[in-house]
Amino acid sequence: MDNGLTDATPTAAAFRLILLSKSNPVMGCYMFWTSLLVLKMLVMSLLTGRQRMKTKTFANPEDLRLSRSPEVRFGDPNVERVRRAHRNDLENILPFLLMSLVYIASGPNPLTARLLIRIGASARLLHTVVYAIIPVPQPARSLAFFTTFAITCFEAGYVLVCCIKYI
Amino acid sequence: MDNGLTDATPTAAAFRLILLSKSNPVMGCYMFWTSLLVLKMLVMSLLTGRQRMKTKTFANPEDLRLSRSPEVRFGDPNVERVRRAHRNDLENILPFLLMSLVYIASGPNPLTARLLIRIGASARLLHTVVYAIIPVPQPARSLAFFTTFAITCFEAGYVLVCCIKYI
Amino acid sequence: MDNGLTDATPTAAAFRLILLSKSNPVMGCYMFWTSLLVLKMLVMSLLTGRQRMKTKTFANPEDLRLSRSPEVRFGDPNVERVRRAHRNDLENILPFLLMSLVYIASGPNPLTARLLIRIGASARLLHTVVYAIIPVPQPARSLAFFTTFAITCFEAGYVLVCCIKYI
Repeated sequence: MDNGLTDATPTAAAFRLILLSKSNPVMGCYMFWTSLLVLKMLVMSLLTGRQRMKTKTFANPEDLRLSRSPEVRFGDPNVERVRRAHRNDLENILPFLLMSLVYIASGPNPLTARLLIRIGASARLLHTVVYAIIPVPQPARSLAFFTTFAITCFEAGYVLVCCIKYI
Repeated sequence: MDNGLTDATPTAAAFRLILLSKSNPVMGCYMFWTSLLVLKMLVMSLLTGRQRMKTKTFANPEDLRLSRSPEVRFGDPNVERVRRAHRNDLENILPFLLMSLVYIASGPNPLTARLLIRIGASARLLHTVVYAIIPVPQPARSLAFFTTFAITCFEAGYVLVCCIKYI
Repeated sequence: MDNGLTDATPTAAAFRLILLSKSNPVMGCYMFWTSLLVLKMLVMSLLTGRQRMKTKTFANPEDLRLSRSPEVRFGDPNVERVRRAHRNDLENILPFLLMSLVYIASGPNPLTARLLIRIGASARLLHTVVYAIIPVPQPARSLAFFTTFAITCFEAGYVLVCCIKYI
């Protein structure tokens, strides 16, 4: 976890400027929140599995033996709610993470960048809570959704302007 | 947005060689087109929302109040078409973007790399137009699909050969 | 494919320490297996197409002419099995690849990191075989699934601890 260089050498000082390395605090912040969001996405699989067990809704014949269900079933509302939340994660968290990585590589203001990453990631954690764990009346889910949505748009706009000459 | 080094120092010259940084024009090109594709994917969510509003097809009970629909509905053809296009994006754009990043890290010919990124990304923009916005007779959609498909395969093949010794 | 620097210069030696570059053997290993997994995911599209052709199950009216099918159809069990396997890939391979990239950037032990990448990627290749190609009785699919699942969790935990100060 240490690159073996001390700050005393000029090369080491220069290395502090490599944007996609953990010597950049923005990248450190990104790495922390990426790990949290990836864990959250993995938990969705477990939540789906729990709902499938509870409602005995299995989509594959080879899974029936696990719960002694008589036949494959589809479309249980509880299973489908978790699956919709999971799909929503794929549609939004993965683009957000990829976009944030590219945004960091464009060298933004460190304070702004860290703020955007923290808020964007927290909003997605909240989104899962109000969608799949405790269904809450609207607009709770919409607010959480559009927070990360707007941040991803801002990051994309910033990089577009910053890299327009490479089109 | 500036790393504070001038080209006069040898270290700065060496930094121009870091592949995953915006000092590399290929990475700049990748960053520009990634932002466009991410924006395009986010627009798919809005298109789905518009179709849901128009056809009053809502999948969650808590969303019904928004449009005064009497009950949850599924399987409207207009909503499903946009959702299939969105899923197709997840299946193809995300692997294309990840593969291109790894391809850039392998140090390809800059001209080839930029050409592949530009064509691959443009084909996906076209794919959305002919799938979800103005449905066009085949083979328009297939051509757009297989263009990016072939480019992603080429990039994967290039990296496989280039990194075979690290297997 | 060569950065034009020899090991004789101190700068070149320092460059060997950039984690997200192919001069890092862990990154080379990651690049190889990422290419394999991306190719595998693309093959899922072809498998779906083959099942659609075989069972004449097309979801879009404009695709009917290709196979002279009379109307759009949904829910064929063979098509749906491949689509579930494909969706499972999106839910697991993409987070695994993104998480592994961040894990490499955190500078883990090279031997451990390469081992985790190799096992995690191989388990996903196996998962596709037992899910979509030759359906095998459980727990074959569960074992393959939870291998990559556990590795992704471990990587996320490692990065969380390593980057907690950047929260």
